[in-house]
Amino acid sequence: MLLRFTKMHGLGNDFVVIDGVSQGVTMTPELARKLGDRRFGIGCDQILLVEPPTTHDVDFRYRIFNQDGSEVEQCGNGARCFAKFVRDRHLTGKSDIRVETASGIITLHVRRNNLIEVNMGVPVLEPEKIPFLADHRQTRYPIEVLGQQLLVGAVSMGNPHVVLNVESTATAPVDTLGPALEGHALFPNRVNVGFMEVLNRHEINLRVYERGAGETLACGTGACAAAVAGQLQDLIDSTVTVNLPGGSLEVSWSGEGEPVIMTGSATTVFHGRIRI
Amino acid sequence: MLLRFTKMHGLGNDFVVIDGVSQGVTMTPELARKLGDRRFGIGCDQILLVEPPTTHDVDFRYRIFNQDGSEVEQCGNGARCFAKFVRDRHLTGKSDIRVETASGIITLHVRRNNLIEVNMGVPVLEPEKIPFLADHRQTRYPIEVLGQQLLVGAVSMGNPHVVLNVESTATAPVDTLGPALEGHALFPNRVNVGFMEVLNRHEINLRVYERGAGETLACGTGACAAAVAGQLQDLIDSTVTVNLPGGSLEVSWSGEGEPVIMTGSATTVFHGRIRI
Repeated sequence: MLLRFTKMHGLGNDFVVIDGVSQGVTMTPELARKLGDRRFGIGCDQILLVEPPTTHDVDFRYRIFNQDGSEVEQCGNGARCFAKFVRDRHLTGKSDIRVETASGIITLHVRRNNLIEVNMGVPVLEPEKIPFLADHRQTRYPIEVLGQQLLVGAVSMGNPHVVLNVESTATAPVDTLGPALEGHALFPNRVNVGFMEVLNRHEINLRVYERGAGETLACGTGACAAAVAGQLQDLIDSTVTVNLPGGSLEVSWSGEGEPVIMTGSATTVFHGRIRI
Repeated sequence: MLLRFTKMHGLGNDFVVIDGVSQGVTMTPELARKLGDRRFGIGCDQILLVEPPTTHDVDFRYRIFNQDGSEVEQCGNGARCFAKFVRDRHLTGKSDIRVETASGIITLHVRRNNLIEVNMGVPVLEPEKIPFLADHRQTRYPIEVLGQQLLVGAVSMGNPHVVLNVESTATAPVDTLGPALEGHALFPNRVNVGFMEVLNRHEINLRVYERGAGETLACGTGACAAAVAGQLQDLIDSTVTVNLPGGSLEVSWSGEGEPVIMTGSATTVFHGRIRI
């Protein structure tokens, strides 16, 4: 069959988006590999498949696949692309879209300026739930790595993050401390590593070394974790602009027990059709 | 404007191919960058632009651009994709296609089995024309690199190549000898480095460390240079199958003063349209 698709990105995190409402598509590891390969296929970080809902109280079901056909639980950049896609393709006219994902129901809000708000859930701060081997909860934890004694924030946004304060993201030792902390013995499930430079109470720069992926252009959960860690240290206000290498996000958090709201753009790059 | 394009590859060397006969397209560095970027654009190694001929004795003009907008002289994998494209899009019905390129007129032949023959020109063996700093022409030259004394063949296919005989391409030290030879003082314009494993008189395995690019999936001029170097050593016959990481090519050479004919496939991956 000839499969229609749209190539999109959220701050450089790129997706092949497929309308599985008007086209019948069964995702297999073989198809995911074919679509995801940047030379022999279309090429993307992940494939987003938009499907009809399986329950009556949501608008869509949306699934995210890696190139090996495995399903991914959540992706903030992908969620924004999904919301722009279903609106642009006239699959819905709603501004508030309820979506079934592999990690539960999420609500997306399309603002008038076409920026999209994603509810990223309530941050988890208890060490054992992150998981992080520490006696008790602290704002910053001492940790020894590569012979240095560092102070780090630790937050789970569904996936574990450590956040380091740095003088400058331009000179931060991402290539050395990133992998060293990612595999640190105190993080049993490994960890994503954020390097945060606080510019003022409303703006931070951030680079993230992602677990299993290395440094990326724009880690959505990393931006949320940094905003939470910065606010817990009282370095920033409740709404902050996070400048990542791929572009900027706005992150808001009202404090303990509240969800983190991430707002940003989604970009359509091109439309295509591929024989599968 | 909405630009129509086709994504193609020749053994994994991938191209965005644009019909500039039926669409008016002016290539600029900015447009090349946009089209070539794998995350923010379409993504490819090079952009192929098919244009009407500027003289009466050829069928098309065809231009190859890098992502920085600079023009490339020749590309065997690109030439095969070009030939398949103009036939599939019904821009010509001919089996022998004469094309203007930045490095002169080339003739392409589309075989009945849809494989495409490209005349890659006459190999240059005189050291000063390769260019290679050697006193006189030899089949194999002694060269010292990383403390080892090696014997290498040297051939220009419009670009300089050295070819090393190895026991096995699987274990060849491409990552160390590749960059060391690429920048060796005896090659004033640097050099592409081929690692050739002769399987029998009709078949070789080859890996190529390309000048300025590192190891690639399928270097067409490297395949030709290896076939020439192998034949000069009388290790292989005049027609040989060259197995590269991205797939196989057939290379024929009748000997001194004759052109090298390279035959291989071209693959259409998908069609798309992008707003530029």
